[in-house]
Amino acid sequence: MDALWPSERELALLTDLYELTMAQAYWRDDHRGEAVFSLFFRKLPAGRRFAVACGQEYAAHLIRGLRFYPEQIERLRQLDLFEDAFLRWLADFRFEGEVRALPEGSVVFPNEPLLEVRAPVIQGQLLESLLMNYVNLETLLASKAARMVLAADGVPVVDFGMRRMHGLESAWRGVRAYRVAGIAGTSNVLGGLSFDLPVRGTMAHSYIQSHDDETEALRRYARDYPGTTLLVDTYDTLRGVDRVIALVRDEGLDVGAVRIDSGDLGELAGQARRKLDAAGLQRVRIVVSGGLDEHRIQTLVEAGAPIDGFGVGTEMGSVADAPSLDFAYKLTEYQGRPRLKTSPGKPLYPGAKQVWRFSDGDGGCHYDEITGRDEARDGVPLLRPVVANGEAVAPLPDPDQARQRLRDQLASLPAAVRSLAPVAEAGGVYPVRISEALTALRRDTVSALD
Amino acid sequence: MDALWPSERELALLTDLYELTMAQAYWRDDHRGEAVFSLFFRKLPAGRRFAVACGQEYAAHLIRGLRFYPEQIERLRQLDLFEDAFLRWLADFRFEGEVRALPEGSVVFPNEPLLEVRAPVIQGQLLESLLMNYVNLETLLASKAARMVLAADGVPVVDFGMRRMHGLESAWRGVRAYRVAGIAGTSNVLGGLSFDLPVRGTMAHSYIQSHDDETEALRRYARDYPGTTLLVDTYDTLRGVDRVIALVRDEGLDVGAVRIDSGDLGELAGQARRKLDAAGLQRVRIVVSGGLDEHRIQTLVEAGAPIDGFGVGTEMGSVADAPSLDFAYKLTEYQGRPRLKTSPGKPLYPGAKQVWRFSDGDGGCHYDEITGRDEARDGVPLLRPVVANGEAVAPLPDPDQARQRLRDQLASLPAAVRSLAPVAEAGGVYPVRISEALTALRRDTVSALD
Repeated sequence: MDALWPSERELALLTDLYELTMAQAYWRDDHRGEAVFSLFFRKLPAGRRFAVACGQEYAAHLIRGLRFYPEQIERLRQLDLFEDAFLRWLADFRFEGEVRALPEGSVVFPNEPLLEVRAPVIQGQLLESLLMNYVNLETLLASKAARMVLAADGVPVVDFGMRRMHGLESAWRGVRAYRVAGIAGTSNVLGGLSFDLPVRGTMAHSYIQSHDDETEALRRYARDYPGTTLLVDTYDTLRGVDRVIALVRDEGLDVGAVRIDSGDLGELAGQARRKLDAAGLQRVRIVVSGGLDEHRIQTLVEAGAPIDGFGVGTEMGSVADAPSLDFAYKLTEYQGRPRLKTSPGKPLYPGAKQVWRFSDGDGGCHYDEITGRDEARDGVPLLRPVVANGEAVAPLPDPDQARQRLRDQLASLPAAVRSLAPVAEAGGVYPVRISEALTALRRDTVSALD
Repeated sequence: MDALWPSERELALLTDLYELTMAQAYWRDDHRGEAVFSLFFRKLPAGRRFAVACGQEYAAHLIRGLRFYPEQIERLRQLDLFEDAFLRWLADFRFEGEVRALPEGSVVFPNEPLLEVRAPVIQGQLLESLLMNYVNLETLLASKAARMVLAADGVPVVDFGMRRMHGLESAWRGVRAYRVAGIAGTSNVLGGLSFDLPVRGTMAHSYIQSHDDETEALRRYARDYPGTTLLVDTYDTLRGVDRVIALVRDEGLDVGAVRIDSGDLGELAGQARRKLDAAGLQRVRIVVSGGLDEHRIQTLVEAGAPIDGFGVGTEMGSVADAPSLDFAYKLTEYQGRPRLKTSPGKPLYPGAKQVWRFSDGDGGCHYDEITGRDEARDGVPLLRPVVANGEAVAPLPDPDQARQRLRDQLASLPAAVRSLAPVAEAGGVYPVRISEALTALRRDTVSALD
């Protein structure tokens, strides 16, 4: 059998070929000036007003350990593109530059760097594909999950998405992003154990079906797992609820909740609640799942459906409405001089940058400003050093802090920016200003190209 | 730093919690009858007429090696849900059942099993999350990539998608699926080397930008990589083409192609072609990239744009239009008796199955029929044994055979089924019949539930 995934020693080969051919070209030409690369997204997916920056600090730590080991050098040699002396250079490669990053869990807007690398151009270039892939996954998942959490408005949201996610790494590392986003638990055993998110689960329809009798299946499961959640919609949801009521009331079994996974969830939850309450079982909760996205969750919450928990899978795990972010990793400065790509429709700003968030004094955020790195502002700069001279200057992120950071930042945004309604209908575009100095720098850089 | 991905020894914990709690419940009740589980999707994403089954044979081989090692048993113990005797049972777990699967690269339609497991119910249940996650990724990617290849109508399509894919495993294993789908090359170095797909690359805008002069950047790269592809749209595409022409004609450099990554790709390709031809450079090819999906590719091809290669990234790698498939893994038989979930809107068929494809004698496929496993038909059964009694009875798939299989099967479909146009406009829904015996079995099983 092929390996489940590549050896961690092969990380450096998880890259696009051109990173390596460009590196060799730089190396041959002794073209090793210091460069600044900026990782940002150009626009938000339709209907989105913010993203949640996730993975960038871990990525910064990851590249410190990036090595081309002897067996990987041999694999590259097979491509017949690289000369021996360059392969020896690769074998000695160590990242020696600086990485500044937004803290995990920061709310982030278009054109704001999530991460900036300052390093010899050959080093900065080599990191491109890895950084983009790594940060894309977690930012994508955290951004979507944060919308689920907003929609649920305090009702716990649990990740049931493993089966729909793009492979096992995505499902596993996704749990780290979900934890930041405020997801309350996950069905993914290893993800939950690895990233300290409560592991949760109920039962599958197959368990009910493998018994001749639904009541018998429910009885056995409740006996085995006191306080568990019983799935009631295998055959007929409300009949399933009646069976649970009988088990609790007549047989004294301890059932924590019923789960409804199909049908009109709001309507069925309401009917189930009335049945449970009428039987004096106010303490038995109702959780729902099945095709839930943030809009369906919000509709259920706003309608006052008596739901105590949402299990979400496909929509969150595959990020069904926007399965990628428009990330770019752009050279913005070389040897101290601003650089710019000028293709139509993609306005970019040159130079190393800083991001500032301005509030109204009551803790409410009003706007962000992107400035040149060395511009001074009266506020807290969001980009902060994680790696300097190839060494870590900040610890690995604390997941509790990251989750709290996101919660605080979301709470401080103008309410309209937190809206889940389509942007065209509801407005709420958060203002991100570009500093005058940066605007002037862009103008001058473009003029110099003509 | 956290590990890049879990240890392969932790594979068995990459599962949803309920698989383990259900397993313990089965174990406690000595509920170990033989069950049949079927992995299939219920409906195609909007606009799709077929999917390409990929990953299922590898998944079947993978589960043969599934083990709960002592350190994973200890991690499970932390959850306070499992009793010692059950954990000892897990430590001895070996898959002892049978897996039948469609061959890699098979065209597949709704309700047709990609894979069926026959095993003690406790064993079959334990595999659910892993099988679904594993097969979802590759089937998803191969199904999308096959559309790109159809749209390109013989023009090579190259994978540039690593940066947009959901993590590193997805980018890596995706290359295996792309190879089956007929993708001609990949920029992903390790993916290409691991799965024997040509590794391809050009250059990034950053390389041009890090030079003061575009011509100098192009010259150096062409000298370093004779026959390479030069990126011409960093500043002004047609001026970039002029520069390449000068380098080839006046300096004798060897340039294989120019790449256009922005703007109106068809229009620019046409203008670039005319410039190149006028300079006698008919041999310099034109490749395009940038936001390409199957519809844009098809439009360019049908308009006769002089394009010699497509580089595709975001749309293919994130499967932007349909980032998950509606897979289900359903118990369909237990202890020799058919089983069925009857929730509204999801008609399912009980029992172990076989899939047959019927052709018109000239090699053209007309329809499929899903039958009970033991029904006889005059044709080739598509599901075939991969694992029996826990042992492999078929070798790992041959990727060349898989690619050829897909090519042959696509060619044999009615032309309308290969159409990329919206289904509502263009029809082309491939007929999948359900055998009379299966229809009757469903009717009887439903009646028995009432």
